[in-house]
Amino acid sequence: MHDLIAVLYPICRSITGEGVRQTLGVLRQHIPLETHEVATGTAVYDWTIPREWNIRDAYIKNALGERVVDFRENNLHVLNYSTPIRATLSLSELKAHLFSIPEHPKWIPYRTSYYKENWGFCLTDEQMSSLRDDHYEVCIDSSLAEGALTYGEYFLPGSTADEILFSCHVCHPSLCNDNLSGISVAVFLAKELAKGERRRYSYRFLFIPGTIGAIAWLSRHQNETARIKHGVVLTCIGDPGPFHYKKSRRGDAEIDRAVAHVLRRRSQPYEILEFSPYGYDERQFCSPGFNLPVGCLMRSMWGQFPQYHTSADDLDFVTPPALGESLSVCREVIDLLEYNRVYRSTSPYCEPALGRRGLYRPTGGGDIGVENLSRLWVLNLADGHHTLLDIADRAGLPFTIVSEAARELAEHGLVAELPAATDAIS
Amino acid sequence: MHDLIAVLYPICRSITGEGVRQTLGVLRQHIPLETHEVATGTAVYDWTIPREWNIRDAYIKNALGERVVDFRENNLHVLNYSTPIRATLSLSELKAHLFSIPEHPKWIPYRTSYYKENWGFCLTDEQMSSLRDDHYEVCIDSSLAEGALTYGEYFLPGSTADEILFSCHVCHPSLCNDNLSGISVAVFLAKELAKGERRRYSYRFLFIPGTIGAIAWLSRHQNETARIKHGVVLTCIGDPGPFHYKKSRRGDAEIDRAVAHVLRRRSQPYEILEFSPYGYDERQFCSPGFNLPVGCLMRSMWGQFPQYHTSADDLDFVTPPALGESLSVCREVIDLLEYNRVYRSTSPYCEPALGRRGLYRPTGGGDIGVENLSRLWVLNLADGHHTLLDIADRAGLPFTIVSEAARELAEHGLVAELPAATDAIS
Amino acid sequence: MHDLIAVLYPICRSITGEGVRQTLGVLRQHIPLETHEVATGTAVYDWTIPREWNIRDAYIKNALGERVVDFRENNLHVLNYSTPIRATLSLSELKAHLFSIPEHPKWIPYRTSYYKENWGFCLTDEQMSSLRDDHYEVCIDSSLAEGALTYGEYFLPGSTADEILFSCHVCHPSLCNDNLSGISVAVFLAKELAKGERRRYSYRFLFIPGTIGAIAWLSRHQNETARIKHGVVLTCIGDPGPFHYKKSRRGDAEIDRAVAHVLRRRSQPYEILEFSPYGYDERQFCSPGFNLPVGCLMRSMWGQFPQYHTSADDLDFVTPPALGESLSVCREVIDLLEYNRVYRSTSPYCEPALGRRGLYRPTGGGDIGVENLSRLWVLNLADGHHTLLDIADRAGLPFTIVSEAARELAEHGLVAELPAATDAIS
Repeated sequence: MHDLIAVLYPICRSITGEGVRQTLGVLRQHIPLETHEVATGTAVYDWTIPREWNIRDAYIKNALGERVVDFRENNLHVLNYSTPIRATLSLSELKAHLFSIPEHPKWIPYRTSYYKENWGFCLTDEQMSSLRDDHYEVCIDSSLAEGALTYGEYFLPGSTADEILFSCHVCHPSLCNDNLSGISVAVFLAKELAKGERRRYSYRFLFIPGTIGAIAWLSRHQNETARIKHGVVLTCIGDPGPFHYKKSRRGDAEIDRAVAHVLRRRSQPYEILEFSPYGYDERQFCSPGFNLPVGCLMRSMWGQFPQYHTSADDLDFVTPPALGESLSVCREVIDLLEYNRVYRSTSPYCEPALGRRGLYRPTGGGDIGVENLSRLWVLNLADGHHTLLDIADRAGLPFTIVSEAARELAEHGLVAELPAATDAIS
Repeated sequence: MHDLIAVLYPICRSITGEGVRQTLGVLRQHIPLETHEVATGTAVYDWTIPREWNIRDAYIKNALGERVVDFRENNLHVLNYSTPIRATLSLSELKAHLFSIPEHPKWIPYRTSYYKENWGFCLTDEQMSSLRDDHYEVCIDSSLAEGALTYGEYFLPGSTADEILFSCHVCHPSLCNDNLSGISVAVFLAKELAKGERRRYSYRFLFIPGTIGAIAWLSRHQNETARIKHGVVLTCIGDPGPFHYKKSRRGDAEIDRAVAHVLRRRSQPYEILEFSPYGYDERQFCSPGFNLPVGCLMRSMWGQFPQYHTSADDLDFVTPPALGESLSVCREVIDLLEYNRVYRSTSPYCEPALGRRGLYRPTGGGDIGVENLSRLWVLNLADGHHTLLDIADRAGLPFTIVSEAARELAEHGLVAELPAATDAIS
Repeated sequence: MHDLIAVLYPICRSITGEGVRQTLGVLRQHIPLETHEVATGTAVYDWTIPREWNIRDAYIKNALGERVVDFRENNLHVLNYSTPIRATLSLSELKAHLFSIPEHPKWIPYRTSYYKENWGFCLTDEQMSSLRDDHYEVCIDSSLAEGALTYGEYFLPGSTADEILFSCHVCHPSLCNDNLSGISVAVFLAKELAKGERRRYSYRFLFIPGTIGAIAWLSRHQNETARIKHGVVLTCIGDPGPFHYKKSRRGDAEIDRAVAHVLRRRSQPYEILEFSPYGYDERQFCSPGFNLPVGCLMRSMWGQFPQYHTSADDLDFVTPPALGESLSVCREVIDLLEYNRVYRSTSPYCEPALGRRGLYRPTGGGDIGVENLSRLWVLNLADGHHTLLDIADRAGLPFTIVSEAARELAEHGLVAELPAATDAIS
């Protein structure tokens, strides 16, 4: 996963343009995703697909003709989506278009201006301080022209039309945790699911420019969103910080409880955050007209780590073990959702005779053991109103053990799985 | 407000009699309140309006003819509602009718005997200790006679018949915090509302003798009480202690949440108390047949400060700044209730394009700011089921900012106010 | 109660056999309980009544013919429900059938093998260590034969068919806290109830072998279980440890709240435990088909005290004062349930005039007192939707005082008891 990030790192992405196309091209070497193009000017809900932005070069030259700020060194140096410019300006004129971070004098900030025409440069505060009162030649060799918004989509059908959605944004330039980590984990998760056997749920992976990409996708698929039973936005998921999960707008959706269960069962600190309408594309999936059960899984929380939206969010900030753990958490969440069924006991009056079936310890009087206990819990709550996750949470037992107990009991005909359309509690 | 308290302080009020009439007369110099008289003997629910009590003089004279306890010095010296008496008694006979506070030897207690005929004197414990074994002439020149119970009422119509009620008791004699502070804050609140523009709610101010006054008023207006959408009993609201708000019997009424929001947003300690059927006239408003959404706003909690129901609850105990803050809290609560509407988003599918309308920061990548965040929250929860207070509380934002965001969004046609009769959550 | 335990202590009980019959015979000297026999082979739900187990003698003799383990010294020495055996075995062959507790070398463990045919001996770890590599003669002179499962039942009719169930297990051999304490408290509780006047509820006491006894009883009375409005399993209730109450599967049943109220009001530590499907016969009463409101009252929690299921759970471990307190808690719970009625105020609009009826302190201004306060609470919540327990819990007052207030108010016609079939909240 880290290698994939390294390949994608130098590409200058934005909400539209060749950067996204190149990125999706790299991903297609891993999974057969479809690329979609939505033409500039297309109305998507309250928005319009903007012009396509492409950039070839950009710099600030001092009076000696030296590039004191150079896009070729780091694509963060350009205010993303800058209009083209070629001009010679005094320092004070120039400064209205410069962005730096005084608290971190060696880092370049990441700034954008998508919806207001502007141009600008982002530079380290050391660069900023070294600018003398002089005239500067600025050049942004970009173009804003008719074109398209590009996004990628990969659909893996399951045995039902019910979907689990994974979504990540592909519009950030050279930023590793905020962008590339989510892309990379999503790609490897998709690869694994594609290799394995057919599952109950269908899986949809979206690789979309933030905000406008999600809006475009939702606008084109409004009537199909009811199929999305659970969803996760993946972002900032490659650094070694503790996991953060931001709940869906619903707050008690099955996905919210599933992720909380998985994180609780790990021996690491983590945090569950309430929904807020600011963040990543869960903003759109959870807008009131959709109100989809989509949360956001992160490690360090965006905006809370100093490297956020700076050049320090680089290849050193994300680590292979952290990416591996994130992939593993996603897998555990998927397993939980896949096996989270509702059962009804076939002998609801008193416990069935488990000992006779070899499902109970033979010698009484001592400790019972977690497997025996799990069987008792499943039998006790197999009333058609509790999912296995409800049972695991009430019992304080790991879902995996409860799920295994249900499987065994079902094999012995002691519980029967209800059809999915039951009015289960969760 | 403190000046008004000073004017009212010397008057000897009780549940009936000239003291209340004089008090209301003073208030009429500020607001055009109506005075109502309910005749002695009138049945009001389970009660009967008692005889009118008036008092001219009262004293205890020692054998030398000296007034050792003198009503003219402090009207608390007489057990309120005492029957008349003229007698000469031994000290031991007298003592059965004397009340003092050993822990506070310089303070006169406030005691009453409304519903059992009795006479008595309240005196400092120093006075009590100085009484020799002697004969004493006692005189209470009071009368209990056919008359009326008097109360004041001030109604300020709004654009709807829905009412906000403010109620305070006017039956305590020379006690400043417990009685006069509530009266004074209510009067100045009414004055301000009368000066301002017409509001959505109508406002009703009651100046009533405790318990029997509330019962009389409710008995006469039973069928109109459904108009009371929110109510607050004001008492003990002039001392510099922290605010205490006792919730209505419902416990989750809009008024309960509104006051809690306002107090939480101040940078001062405060306490929210659960409902209890003991206290002030919220007891009657919250009796099970009415169950009105009426809470009780105090600063120091009655019964919890040592000066409570003693002569130390005097003009020094209440302060102009404390009264000013209390008035301000009432105003903030009113503003919240007035603007606590329910909205529905006109573009519920995805966020609308706020940047295009100048409602979003132009440069992305940095901090978002509370105004932008408030707009996102309002849009996200403008589903016809959340009031602005629901939104502010869920977002952890001040109501004022959320309300301003809703106003702006409505101006841009992005949200529409629902008619008040919607089934809003709170 | 301790004397009764002492009489029952030496008897070798099991889930079937003469031990249970002798035990019930002793109990019949105290209460006229009925003895029921369910024949071996009878189907009870998913189970079959097992063969009857009886035992006359058992020992392990060393090569010198000395009894190194002797059933006549302590009936725990035999694995309960052991099949008969007569054999001479090497030490290593024997060891597969021996159970001891290394951490408590002087205690004999209690072990059973009901549902898998096996034989074995339980011995102290000191005995275990002293066994030389020798040949041993083992003898278990037991029989497993057609017969019956025996249980006792005592029913005390009340003025309604609604029942309160007390259940305890009678299948453990010489164990005092785990078994005999529950039996003894149940017997003395039944004796007291039988002596007193007729009560609202009917009372049913079950003295049943654990698990299979409960299953047999439920199987024979499935259609009558709806009458059980409240139930408590009594076990481990004779030691001096703090009370533990395990809630019913419902978690908020009236019995759960009643026991919690009574324990909260005592000045002793206690603990309320969530339901779990492992434990005593609440497992069967709370199986999903029944879901009866039956909890489990203990002092030290089974499995949590070291003496649990060992020979140290003996006559010294249970104490007369602890048994007395347990009986008293049961009585308080019964009183609460008997008097936990729903009232409706006859004057719901405002408070009624309590002073006139002598139900309020005559002199106002001072403290109110808990009796007056209780009356106000009852009147305020006497709306047909709150039980007295709801009122006591909300008011933070003892049920006994609230109940007394309701009685007084009812005497004065101020509240009226609703028929029991009302849709009261709890």
